Amino acid sequence: MTLNPAQQAEIDALRDQSAPTRRATVPALEEMLYRALPVLDHGFVRVIDYMGDDAAVVQAARVSYGRGTRKVSEDAGLIRYLMRHRHSTPFEMCEIKYHVKLPIFVARQWIRHRTANVNEISARYSILDREFYLPAPDNLAAQSAVNRQGRGDLLEGEDAARVLDLLRSDAMQTYDHYALMLNENEDGTPVDPGRQGLARELARMNLTLNTYTQWYWKTDLHNLLGFLSLRADAHAQYEIRVYAEAMLESVKAWVPATYAAFCDFRLGAVTFSAPMLALVRRMIAGETVEQAGSGLSKREWAELMAALSA
Amino acid sequence: MTLNPAQQAEIDALRDQSAPTRRATVPALEEMLYRALPVLDHGFVRVIDYMGDDAAVVQAARVSYGRGTRKVSEDAGLIRYLMRHRHSTPFEMCEIKYHVKLPIFVARQWIRHRTANVNEISARYSILDREFYLPAPDNLAAQSAVNRQGRGDLLEGEDAARVLDLLRSDAMQTYDHYALMLNENEDGTPVDPGRQGLARELARMNLTLNTYTQWYWKTDLHNLLGFLSLRADAHAQYEIRVYAEAMLESVKAWVPATYAAFCDFRLGAVTFSAPMLALVRRMIAGETVEQAGSGLSKREWAELMAALSA
Amino acid sequence: MTLNPAQQAEIDALRDQSAPTRRATVPALEEMLYRALPVLDHGFVRVIDYMGDDAAVVQAARVSYGRGTRKVSEDAGLIRYLMRHRHSTPFEMCEIKYHVKLPIFVARQWIRHRTANVNEISARYSILDREFYLPAPDNLAAQSAVNRQGRGDLLEGEDAARVLDLLRSDAMQTYDHYALMLNENEDGTPVDPGRQGLARELARMNLTLNTYTQWYWKTDLHNLLGFLSLRADAHAQYEIRVYAEAMLESVKAWVPATYAAFCDFRLGAVTFSAPMLALVRRMIAGETVEQAGSGLSKREWAELMAALSA
Amino acid sequence: MTLNPAQQAEIDALRDQSAPTRRATVPALEEMLYRALPVLDHGFVRVIDYMGDDAAVVQAARVSYGRGTRKVSEDAGLIRYLMRHRHSTPFEMCEIKYHVKLPIFVARQWIRHRTANVNEISARYSILDREFYLPAPDNLAAQSAVNRQGRGDLLEGEDAARVLDLLRSDAMQTYDHYALMLNENEDGTPVDPGRQGLARELARMNLTLNTYTQWYWKTDLHNLLGFLSLRADAHAQYEIRVYAEAMLESVKAWVPATYAAFCDFRLGAVTFSAPMLALVRRMIAGETVEQAGSGLSKREWAELMAALSA
Repeated sequence: MTLNPAQQAEIDALRDQSAPTRRATVPALEEMLYRALPVLDHGFVRVIDYMGDDAAVVQAARVSYGRGTRKVSEDAGLIRYLMRHRHSTPFEMCEIKYHVKLPIFVARQWIRHRTANVNEISARYSILDREFYLPAPDNLAAQSAVNRQGRGDLLEGEDAARVLDLLRSDAMQTYDHYALMLNENEDGTPVDPGRQGLARELARMNLTLNTYTQWYWKTDLHNLLGFLSLRADAHAQYEIRVYAEAMLESVKAWVPATYAAFCDFRLGAVTFSAPMLALVRRMIAGETVEQAGSGLSKREWAELMAALSA
Repeated sequence: MTLNPAQQAEIDALRDQSAPTRRATVPALEEMLYRALPVLDHGFVRVIDYMGDDAAVVQAARVSYGRGTRKVSEDAGLIRYLMRHRHSTPFEMCEIKYHVKLPIFVARQWIRHRTANVNEISARYSILDREFYLPAPDNLAAQSAVNRQGRGDLLEGEDAARVLDLLRSDAMQTYDHYALMLNENEDGTPVDPGRQGLARELARMNLTLNTYTQWYWKTDLHNLLGFLSLRADAHAQYEIRVYAEAMLESVKAWVPATYAAFCDFRLGAVTFSAPMLALVRRMIAGETVEQAGSGLSKREWAELMAALSA
Repeated sequence: MTLNPAQQAEIDALRDQSAPTRRATVPALEEMLYRALPVLDHGFVRVIDYMGDDAAVVQAARVSYGRGTRKVSEDAGLIRYLMRHRHSTPFEMCEIKYHVKLPIFVARQWIRHRTANVNEISARYSILDREFYLPAPDNLAAQSAVNRQGRGDLLEGEDAARVLDLLRSDAMQTYDHYALMLNENEDGTPVDPGRQGLARELARMNLTLNTYTQWYWKTDLHNLLGFLSLRADAHAQYEIRVYAEAMLESVKAWVPATYAAFCDFRLGAVTFSAPMLALVRRMIAGETVEQAGSGLSKREWAELMAALSA
Repeated sequence: MTLNPAQQAEIDALRDQSAPTRRATVPALEEMLYRALPVLDHGFVRVIDYMGDDAAVVQAARVSYGRGTRKVSEDAGLIRYLMRHRHSTPFEMCEIKYHVKLPIFVARQWIRHRTANVNEISARYSILDREFYLPAPDNLAAQSAVNRQGRGDLLEGEDAARVLDLLRSDAMQTYDHYALMLNENEDGTPVDPGRQGLARELARMNLTLNTYTQWYWKTDLHNLLGFLSLRADAHAQYEIRVYAEAMLESVKAWVPATYAAFCDFRLGAVTFSAPMLALVRRMIAGETVEQAGSGLSKREWAELMAALSA
């Protein structure tokens, strides 16, 4: 993660401020507020603002005038019920806003979640920083032999070194040429007064997809959980999963009852199809079942067995 | 407006609470928080929570690390620019949540705005209160003779009295029959143990559309302004416009720079079509123009003249 | 269902037309097109238009140039995979448009599904028909004693007759007063020239929630399936479930492979939470488990047992 | 544009097919169907499917049973009214689906329009083609000196040659290294069996932002017009504007009355703020007005003058 002193000073100034509010307030999330949680080599996630808490979910489900006098345990029970039965609208009553720094190829996956508000830094206006993602050796994986979109074994030795070298040198070269084509100093004057710089909106096309970008990303708790259930999942690409994991920490601090219900009923849950369920019933009855004749394809059978043995 | 003592006590308890926060805080909106602003005969609008302020719009537009050190006047200039050029995403970074009590026929108009989060009291679970909207004499208007969806002159004297009498007696009768069919005391025991009550989800169909309902309604500032530009407009039905006007007051307290720009560039703005614009140019050049031969339909011509003379 | 001769003639004219098209076409759905499928006592569902078919789902998943040369069975396999792993975007590539006539209280539930396009007849412009929903004796249920939002036993004998009588007479009376307040003949002239009619936008508030309304409702296949999974479910209120069931028939005719996958992986599927799954594994291992000590609440336990014994 | 023979054959096969349908059909758009309209050096736009026509807009606005017997001119009048008063829902009743090939940096702008359905080719699964956008000499513009996000004069002579050379050689080199890291033949076997290939989901990060991608993109007519009003505008970046212009041609063929209204009331329209409108009224009255004392900022004044003199 790279924060320059001016950025760190801005963050510190925000963390030093305090004002009284009548709004629902969550001390554990206040503690985390504005701080950059490091992700990958130069990225981060920062919680910038939030609205609501576990009680706000309950309040909306009951359409009540106040925060009620029920016990925390009753609220948690209702939250578990809402989560289990996919009553999504009460969770939409909480909102959170993040500032995220992330590689462009991760941003392209992320933006597919449409039910969020986004303000990304624009390379039509601004000149991007010279920062790009290079995988750590632990994440430099070969293509999976069995899964068209997955990773297999780690690259090692010379193979790994060569790949890292290509990624690094290409990113540096394309960035340097980007800067050369722009021909702009920070104050807008030309580096080389003898030639014209290319328009920013064109020069950016020379950057590679591991260049870092930034955005403000704001969403409600229901849609955040939908994002996290897909992106904190083992099938998600590592480079977006680490962002999801950092965000999960903020959810845990923010809405602990919702977080616990989410772990039980979404992250750790498994959905069985009608044919799978019929097989499970037979297995519980003590019957021995096999893929052949089960009505499941081999792939479905493998998924069922994995779920039952995990 | 009808708040019972228990409801008022819940609201008072919320207004008495205070906690320190690092988040952006707006004292003028804090002052308004939780309070019921009366609308129509039994309705209200209450601000329940909010996220962000004018500076958050600017911060998102600049994707900055902190709140910046620019002057308020620079921020206001940027906000005016964003509003003028319909850059909507920075305004999406602020969020507000209301608790609203409103007649069902108003709720049916309101819900057409889809980009909001809603939790409405459910008459499948709960028994609705015996409250229904009756227009004040000032709002008991005849059908407009010229506008298929508008109002004309006020009903007066016996005509008005008769209408009010019908509205009141029908609402009371259908509510009383609703209660009779439910056959439920507040604690769920039957009023008349000798007969079975009708399911709540069925009995509710006997209520009239002026019965009051309630919901929590949460949206971002951009979509709120979209709602207000349609519903605070003179063409909106009076019964929803009064809600929009109450909400405008909360916007003014919350984000004063955005509110001012909204008044100039949206509420008070007029859009001229290409043919209208051509006529305006000729008028400025001193030419006399007439509807015949103008290329505008009579209706368009009337709209242009109204805009230029208002 | 009530179609007047003019409406039936308009429908017949549409069904008689035919034009050649290069677009994906589904004969089984063409057969159904424009026809009113009766629902409840006066309601209907009509398929008005559609875009795409099962092959369009596959085409989008593969981002291919044409329709491909794979076998139908390969396409079905891919569709099953997409449905199982909740890859939703390929299903968004198909679109369908319905014309629906439905009671207002059903419309209010339905409209909560926000990801659809809707054009409803407006009672600000138009005068609604004198049609209202009255439950058939088979659907006149008492409030459930165990489920706050459910139905229990049927009302019988005098209890049933009394309820039906109240619903009918109140709906007729409030409609008659609506008409009286409007004081309008079909051509807009007053019924009684001696008095002014109330504005339509006000008079409508006197109608009861079982009055029928109509709308055009258009959505993509993914969101339609989301709607159907909630509304064709046994927990949905009967009066909306019958609409969902009629629409399921159109899905079956339109995209048979998607329909089959939907039945297996959504309608007939069950999701087990992490704690439920742990218990299922123990049951399969032959262990006897009980609610006490299971980590499940009584309600969760009952849901698990229901799923395993159904 | 680069279509290989297999792709062209698939397109030809689709264009050769024909089936009878009862749906609304638009011969002028049928003529265009599936054909690739070339955009930029390797991109295209293809209309893949559509639903509805001008009459469907009218039908939804009237919630009618059939297509009505009104004249085309009456329909056009209603469409103009709807467009002028921003009644958006009737236009949502038409839907269109495109297949688009476009540079990644254009795709990143485009995807910001969230109210559309998208299926993009995935570089986690597939290997992207060796195709990248290089600006034609006419579009190789310098940064604007006055507009932070605009283009200025064209680069010329050696400056232009150098930029093109850098863009070309960097794109070719990063693609070649991408292929080298993948180490995959088309059938999945390694090019060099002596080393492991990098996972596709990682290797893609080495590509530059002018690499071409593809997607299926589907939206309703209302949201399409929103997209076009921003992206066919003179302020839009050239590289996305050319796509918008190709799509405008399809709108013109598809819904000519809507297209005409769109040109008058959106593309060619200007919105005046309340202070601008006040000045226009004074100018029409023959008064001479100046920026100083006008209440407008210099920038607003310049925008007003530009609108009145265009």
